[in-house]
Amino acid sequence: MDPQTFMDIATKVTKLKMYPYFDIAHYTLMCMSVRDDLPQNQPAGTQPFYRRHPLSTWLSSMLLCFAGSIIANILLGEPAITPFKDHRSVLTATAVWYLVFYSPFDLVYKLARLLPFKMVICGFKEVQRASKIYAAVNHTAKLYPNAYLIIVLIGTIKGAGSYLMKNFERLIRGVWVPGTNEILQPTFATKACLVASIVFLLERLNYIQAPHPLIYFGVVIFFVYFKLSALLLGIHDPFAPFENLFCAIFMGGMWDALRRAVVREQKPQDERDRNDMPMKSKEDKKKD
Amino acid sequence: MDPQTFMDIATKVTKLKMYPYFDIAHYTLMCMSVRDDLPQNQPAGTQPFYRRHPLSTWLSSMLLCFAGSIIANILLGEPAITPFKDHRSVLTATAVWYLVFYSPFDLVYKLARLLPFKMVICGFKEVQRASKIYAAVNHTAKLYPNAYLIIVLIGTIKGAGSYLMKNFERLIRGVWVPGTNEILQPTFATKACLVASIVFLLERLNYIQAPHPLIYFGVVIFFVYFKLSALLLGIHDPFAPFENLFCAIFMGGMWDALRRAVVREQKPQDERDRNDMPMKSKEDKKKD
Amino acid sequence: MDPQTFMDIATKVTKLKMYPYFDIAHYTLMCMSVRDDLPQNQPAGTQPFYRRHPLSTWLSSMLLCFAGSIIANILLGEPAITPFKDHRSVLTATAVWYLVFYSPFDLVYKLARLLPFKMVICGFKEVQRASKIYAAVNHTAKLYPNAYLIIVLIGTIKGAGSYLMKNFERLIRGVWVPGTNEILQPTFATKACLVASIVFLLERLNYIQAPHPLIYFGVVIFFVYFKLSALLLGIHDPFAPFENLFCAIFMGGMWDALRRAVVREQKPQDERDRNDMPMKSKEDKKKD
Repeated sequence: MDPQTFMDIATKVTKLKMYPYFDIAHYTLMCMSVRDDLPQNQPAGTQPFYRRHPLSTWLSSMLLCFAGSIIANILLGEPAITPFKDHRSVLTATAVWYLVFYSPFDLVYKLARLLPFKMVICGFKEVQRASKIYAAVNHTAKLYPNAYLIIVLIGTIKGAGSYLMKNFERLIRGVWVPGTNEILQPTFATKACLVASIVFLLERLNYIQAPHPLIYFGVVIFFVYFKLSALLLGIHDPFAPFENLFCAIFMGGMWDALRRAVVREQKPQDERDRNDMPMKSKEDKKKD
Repeated sequence: MDPQTFMDIATKVTKLKMYPYFDIAHYTLMCMSVRDDLPQNQPAGTQPFYRRHPLSTWLSSMLLCFAGSIIANILLGEPAITPFKDHRSVLTATAVWYLVFYSPFDLVYKLARLLPFKMVICGFKEVQRASKIYAAVNHTAKLYPNAYLIIVLIGTIKGAGSYLMKNFERLIRGVWVPGTNEILQPTFATKACLVASIVFLLERLNYIQAPHPLIYFGVVIFFVYFKLSALLLGIHDPFAPFENLFCAIFMGGMWDALRRAVVREQKPQDERDRNDMPMKSKEDKKKD
Repeated sequence: MDPQTFMDIATKVTKLKMYPYFDIAHYTLMCMSVRDDLPQNQPAGTQPFYRRHPLSTWLSSMLLCFAGSIIANILLGEPAITPFKDHRSVLTATAVWYLVFYSPFDLVYKLARLLPFKMVICGFKEVQRASKIYAAVNHTAKLYPNAYLIIVLIGTIKGAGSYLMKNFERLIRGVWVPGTNEILQPTFATKACLVASIVFLLERLNYIQAPHPLIYFGVVIFFVYFKLSALLLGIHDPFAPFENLFCAIFMGGMWDALRRAVVREQKPQDERDRNDMPMKSKEDKKKD
């Protein structure tokens, strides 16, 4: 591709306005994630949950739609309720919520689940995600110029707030699943937001010298590419191999291997052969 | 009644001071709701919960007494601890807590549960509720002049904060009931607070032209009337019929009816007769 | 001991810098409390929790290390994320976390659990606790000069924040134990922090006329003495007798005794003999 054309596209992507199309894609996905999280098997003769508790699904959906802002505001000591100040966004999100849950013949929900539509919605949503992270990094960097950790954290939270909000959003619907959360099993989206935040921070600190539209466009392509490959090819976490390697080296795995080697040399050959598999767990028990 | 006398009464009600009598009524009801929520059946030979954990019941009671302020402050980014700045209120609430839980021969608690006393206390509490909502609407309208949604939300929360705090107040006492909350099954009080907030907001925006004491007195009468009718006649939710109608029309019920009609015409008569009842649930399953 | 030497030591203790040694002792204990709280019995052949979820243990440890600041900031309406602004503290805490969880051959963790090392670490930690409470009381007294309750509360929270954070720190690790919390069963440390806060407040209000280094040193000795006696002699709550006495007198026990005496006189002798033990529970049931 002609570099000039590429640069023009990148500049256009940088200047895209999020409202209405990209925001609507985001709201749609959030409302759908609330609906998909509802219990799917109704007992015969009862109405589905979202028919009986519209207030609950509405608040759940709003919490997810504005999750990044709400969590970031609480952490930064700003009013948590600020997102509700913007009537246009709230009304748009409410309209999307209504259509996803209560549209005639469930048309909107069924269409949005079809792969071609889903791909478009997800693609739009990833563009909005990149834009939110960039805005968050810049906003936080103004508030705390030298607190790099906070800048990266807030960037990540604004990009992947809905995953962190999940537990509390479920609580609104009377469901409490403490055994799972985003910190325990971070999704790829959260990790990608972390990487994007670091990239935008490095750009701000002039460690990356490329022109801004290129960096921004690169992040957008990175988000969209991996989202679509997750949808189409089922690749869910391209970071997993690197993480496993890192964990194996730095999170005790190296010492484990070393210790196992030492222990093996001391043990007689026959005992080792018999106990090969459960040996590690025995050693763990000895520690306690 | 003479309109002038009525107006005079309304003006007097508008200028009523909440401290001490109305606040005490509020604190009494909050402490009683903590005590009533404790497990009632003690195993033989053990002391009741509130004897063994006074700190826990005290903090629970304080959280409920100042629930509206605490939640509203968190949402508005103000210090959550502000209510504890006012020593007079905290000391009054503490005295009420002590009397409700540990009065000689349980006199205060037993008296407060008698219907005539309960009616007076509840009546006073509703007057205090109206006053809190009015103050909250005015306070928030100064902070966010055009954010009508926030004004109504904060008004509702200040009026019905104790219901929203319930889950967390229980957690202080070591009880966690995630399956139920105020959003899932809003009580009549919360809905009434919502209506009152909207009325006060409309008055502020000059959509209601009546003189202020009349509007305020009307809201007070509305609160007291429905509270007393709940106590005496057991009418728990006068809004329920309107809600059911609204849900039936807008929350998918209309499309349901339409679809059912369409499906019935297409199905042969005999099959319809056999499957009349469980038909809906089958359709629901097909959707997934 | 020579009073002048004693005074010199006290002055030196007052001017001790917390970073690095005292802070490191605090971080070590916090990380160890996270690790000790993990499930100890691994199924054979699986890795321990902290190997599989390093992010989760890191965030848990950070939440505990900075618990006091985080909770106090939320209550005072300041940004909850402020502790993460201080890179030096976060990096130190992260290094401590790494060493406690993943040091070669688990050396650091095993050493830190040995009694002599543990005593030194706990001693250092108590010095840091006193310093944090003093700083918190002074800081809050500047913000809210006359709100004594808030000053004492924030002092206690800064000193014993990790106990209050426990439930939420566990949630990060996917564990939810709602039946127990610090309010329900306050530990000695929390009560000692409360006493220390009150002492520092009284000093500020000039009710205690001793020179500042003496008061401060006294509080430090009080903390260290009781911590070491808990470690060495197993004395866990020196306040318990006073509390029990207080509860017996003021929390209804007195009226209980009085009522029991009255009831006994009215009852015939034979019935009383038979029902001596379960009598109280019967009366409780009558109340409801």
